[in-house]
Amino acid sequence: MKDRIQVVEKILSANDRIAEDNQARLDAAGVLALNFMASPGAGKTSLIERTLEALAPERRIAVVDGDVASSIDADRAAAAGATAVQINTGGECHLDAVMLQSALDQLPLDKMDLLIVENVGNLICPASFALGTHASVLIASVPEGDDKPYKYPGMYRGVDALVINKIDLLPYIDFDMDRFRAGVEMLNPGLVTFALSCKTGEGLEAWLDWLNSRIEGCPSKG
Amino acid sequence: MKDRIQVVEKILSANDRIAEDNQARLDAAGVLALNFMASPGAGKTSLIERTLEALAPERRIAVVDGDVASSIDADRAAAAGATAVQINTGGECHLDAVMLQSALDQLPLDKMDLLIVENVGNLICPASFALGTHASVLIASVPEGDDKPYKYPGMYRGVDALVINKIDLLPYIDFDMDRFRAGVEMLNPGLVTFALSCKTGEGLEAWLDWLNSRIEGCPSKG
Repeated sequence: MKDRIQVVEKILSANDRIAEDNQARLDAAGVLALNFMASPGAGKTSLIERTLEALAPERRIAVVDGDVASSIDADRAAAAGATAVQINTGGECHLDAVMLQSALDQLPLDKMDLLIVENVGNLICPASFALGTHASVLIASVPEGDDKPYKYPGMYRGVDALVINKIDLLPYIDFDMDRFRAGVEMLNPGLVTFALSCKTGEGLEAWLDWLNSRIEGCPSKG
Repeated sequence: MKDRIQVVEKILSANDRIAEDNQARLDAAGVLALNFMASPGAGKTSLIERTLEALAPERRIAVVDGDVASSIDADRAAAAGATAVQINTGGECHLDAVMLQSALDQLPLDKMDLLIVENVGNLICPASFALGTHASVLIASVPEGDDKPYKYPGMYRGVDALVINKIDLLPYIDFDMDRFRAGVEMLNPGLVTFALSCKTGEGLEAWLDWLNSRIEGCPSKG
């Protein structure tokens, strides 16, 4: 058992070293990088489309999409105006720093302001692997249910911002917002949270304001 | 690289051996066992509740719930009348045959007709680990989107039945049932499929008929 633990630690620290390299490259280019994590179907790609509609081309945005298979998400991001790179993990349940490193090699970092990394749809594994992004954003959604913070604490504990998507469905679903928020507050006190609907556009303004302020806070290009 | 592959094969075959032992124990007791897999929030627990309401106590049903944390699902299954065992995986993204083996030790197998194993909410990892159940059931849901078969082919390819839950939300969501079904058909031709709503009860009858016929097809107790 002790041996096994040591191996896991070694893998993690190799990943962490490459994540640090990734972040240094992003910092040198003045690019803010966000790691979008969520369940399958919570709306990561829809939020990316809405963000591109509102902020591009003034903000120069690239998207790296991680999926087990297909290029559906990168196609959607490219159609919405982003420079997009698809990573097919070939079965792996999360992105890691090496995968992002390969994607960065394909991107014009010095002509970008924002990089959105769309992780594999999964509420567990992606939380354990640093990529080198500056902040992690969890996209939850109303149809998933109000019990998710209690059932996936690792994910909720480790993120820097939370989006609650699909609030347009609140009239049709038994979702207790107070129970949901109490679970979040227990795990991640004071977490910046945006309740919105990518379908109707309700609540998007606050998300975009936060994102703009994060981009402006980035070190300027050298 | 070759060494690494060999290790993975060894782990899988150890899991498979224990899965076979689990199935032999279930067969000896005449218990049909199903492995419920789904995204977080697709409605595994709701389908279990509805199934218990309709079939218990005539059918003697037990539930094993796998979650990263909490006992929310086992509490719900127990409240609905099942004998329930909660497995907290402590971070693991799937159940495996050893975990189910421990749960079987706690269950009165010779006083059961049906065992439902509710796997961890995850569309990737659970597909790779046999448990010893007789059939795998994937619970998809309308709000997840019609692109999920294309993005999570491993899961859709490996299951024996498919439930499409939350059809009551079809009027409020852009979900193309033809696109969804075409993706499923490509991966798993002729897959037995039930479109239903655990909220309204629509479509449940066909699911319950299928389940009853599977239970009746089980080898009788010795």
